[in-house]
Amino acid sequence: MSLSLPEIDAYLADCRQLTLRELREIIPQAGRCRSILYDLMLEYPLREAKALRPALCVATCRALGGSMEAVLRSAATLELYHNAFLIHDDVEDGSESRRDGPTLHRALGAPIAVNVGDAMLALALEPLLDNMRLLGMGKALRILQIISRMARESTEGQAIELDWIRTGEWRLRDADYLRMVYKKTSWYTFIAPMLIGGVVAGAAAPRLTALRKFAALLGMAFQIQDDVLNLVAEGGKYGKEIAGDLWEGKHTLIVLHMMRSVSSRERAQAQAILQKPRPAANGTAPAGSGAALKDLLPRLEAAGALTREGRRAIEEALPPEPGASGAKTAEDIEYLATLIQRTGSVEYARGVARHHAEIAATALARNAWLQESIHRDFLCGLVDYVVGRDR
Amino acid sequence: MSLSLPEIDAYLADCRQLTLRELREIIPQAGRCRSILYDLMLEYPLREAKALRPALCVATCRALGGSMEAVLRSAATLELYHNAFLIHDDVEDGSESRRDGPTLHRALGAPIAVNVGDAMLALALEPLLDNMRLLGMGKALRILQIISRMARESTEGQAIELDWIRTGEWRLRDADYLRMVYKKTSWYTFIAPMLIGGVVAGAAAPRLTALRKFAALLGMAFQIQDDVLNLVAEGGKYGKEIAGDLWEGKHTLIVLHMMRSVSSRERAQAQAILQKPRPAANGTAPAGSGAALKDLLPRLEAAGALTREGRRAIEEALPPEPGASGAKTAEDIEYLATLIQRTGSVEYARGVARHHAEIAATALARNAWLQESIHRDFLCGLVDYVVGRDR
Repeated sequence: MSLSLPEIDAYLADCRQLTLRELREIIPQAGRCRSILYDLMLEYPLREAKALRPALCVATCRALGGSMEAVLRSAATLELYHNAFLIHDDVEDGSESRRDGPTLHRALGAPIAVNVGDAMLALALEPLLDNMRLLGMGKALRILQIISRMARESTEGQAIELDWIRTGEWRLRDADYLRMVYKKTSWYTFIAPMLIGGVVAGAAAPRLTALRKFAALLGMAFQIQDDVLNLVAEGGKYGKEIAGDLWEGKHTLIVLHMMRSVSSRERAQAQAILQKPRPAANGTAPAGSGAALKDLLPRLEAAGALTREGRRAIEEALPPEPGASGAKTAEDIEYLATLIQRTGSVEYARGVARHHAEIAATALARNAWLQESIHRDFLCGLVDYVVGRDR
Repeated sequence: MSLSLPEIDAYLADCRQLTLRELREIIPQAGRCRSILYDLMLEYPLREAKALRPALCVATCRALGGSMEAVLRSAATLELYHNAFLIHDDVEDGSESRRDGPTLHRALGAPIAVNVGDAMLALALEPLLDNMRLLGMGKALRILQIISRMARESTEGQAIELDWIRTGEWRLRDADYLRMVYKKTSWYTFIAPMLIGGVVAGAAAPRLTALRKFAALLGMAFQIQDDVLNLVAEGGKYGKEIAGDLWEGKHTLIVLHMMRSVSSRERAQAQAILQKPRPAANGTAPAGSGAALKDLLPRLEAAGALTREGRRAIEEALPPEPGASGAKTAEDIEYLATLIQRTGSVEYARGVARHHAEIAATALARNAWLQESIHRDFLCGLVDYVVGRDR
């Protein structure tokens, strides 16, 4: 049995409520150290979000016969880690909004945002050390090792992607992409939560191996579907800006397939576009910059207050326009979208996602040791959810 | 017996060599994950630095009879943490240089820099978990608890300071400042390294309490001396730019004392200056901005290519100059320096630093259980070193 999509949403919502209650216990009272530090830690978690990681952790533990009391603290800690990394990611990417609100660094500046993220990472260690009392030395230690591996795999995945950007590498095979996603998405969003749920429930090594395999495949399907949604979601249904990945020049399976499938002339042009920076926020130059002079100079010249040579000299000394500065334009994105449409790269990516989800489903169905329960049905339903979701 | 200042430098240099060798073992081989991630982790540690934290950890352990083999890995891990936080600090502050080289984010961008810092924090967990094998469960767990407390105290201290900046709070007592420094500097640079050294050596609770007291006092003296050096060091002897704290508007004991000691009119003016932003790097506007036109417009006018009215219209449309934009000016800093000189605030701060160092020295002298050794003499000598150093 699998939960339907609305049932999955309800399961996620229940887990999210429990997670938030637990986070309020882990995070010290607001104002505890005479600063806004601890108030800000709940800022992102309280905004609308799926809280997928704690739900995966809880469902795995309970489907293996573990108790909610034993697993909830570790599950909530995963959400604390996740939100810390979100804050850092937003600083790294200079993102303007997160979950329908301004990013923390936009609201209060990068110093406060980076520090809140670091403080959350520090705080997350405490419940994991408390696990020694709650779960005993052996399980607590194994959970710490999983967290350490998770943090390492995801920063390695991030580093690989950043290296592709830095060196302008686009000749990548699907295997390269899937290796990066295995580290960055599978480990972080699926493998670590499920392994921790399994360890809390006392699962033996072969079962943990099976869980890891399922989680790895589901994570890859999830990331590819995320890339697909970024490109084709109907307006409003999906939180991020439409085609943001193209503006950002992200290395997605879709773009890699397109690059392999076009002529070498088209590939060169697409690569040149992908490597341009994205335009500044709002696509307009800041007030008081060269843009303000754009209208003024011709008027001065027409009024005889400025010679043609004078105008040219001033224009050369001005900062470059956003378009002229080499940033991507709407036409550039249109060009990429046309190539992607012609090569059927979205359908290709959808197929790869579905393929991975199917192997994951088969792997899960074989695991008869998962107890018949809403928790097992959540995990089964997640397979369809991951490739069928529209947000 | 205390080591002399040159002997202290030699002790630090020895520990630094051992620390670097250990870091090369902790950090995976360059290129391991097909990216520059692991190469970049050694970038800051290899630049000229004191490596005070591992030396404190080693000296404490050995003065208590512990072995180098037992402590070195934990000591090196402290240096890994420290360099991760330095990378994040540089991003937070938008710093241009670190240890006579460009900051990591300036060389490779904020995304790579924040990720390398996060990856170092993740990697640092591994040797601490390895301690379970090396030192046994009990000691390994206590070290993890100290690290967790250290990260929490220092992010809290950072949050308190950032709150003062955010709210423009300047009516602060010495006690407020010392509480912030206890969290931000004492815990991070002195208490955690010494406690870890003590735990590795197997010191009992009362001895750990005594070590903590000594470390707390020494940390406060160290930070106040740091603030003094920032203001009065001779050019070139000190790595950071002279009076950088004043440009930054930092809440130092010196400035707080000055603010208490001047007339209310002067205080209001000083506060207005301190809250201005610091000018952009190099004090000059970026190339291609209004500054480039500053020379051009008069020349055009003199050549008859531009009328006086035209020039005025263009100047109004230009982005504001750094000075006019409300950033601090050299005269502003001069004004603050004059007030500080008149109120004797540097001498006052030096006195407070010396006072804390003396209580620390007395506390240490009482600890007859530290074995007579170069390690104990290093700790004793550190008291003079902290308040006598010129860099």
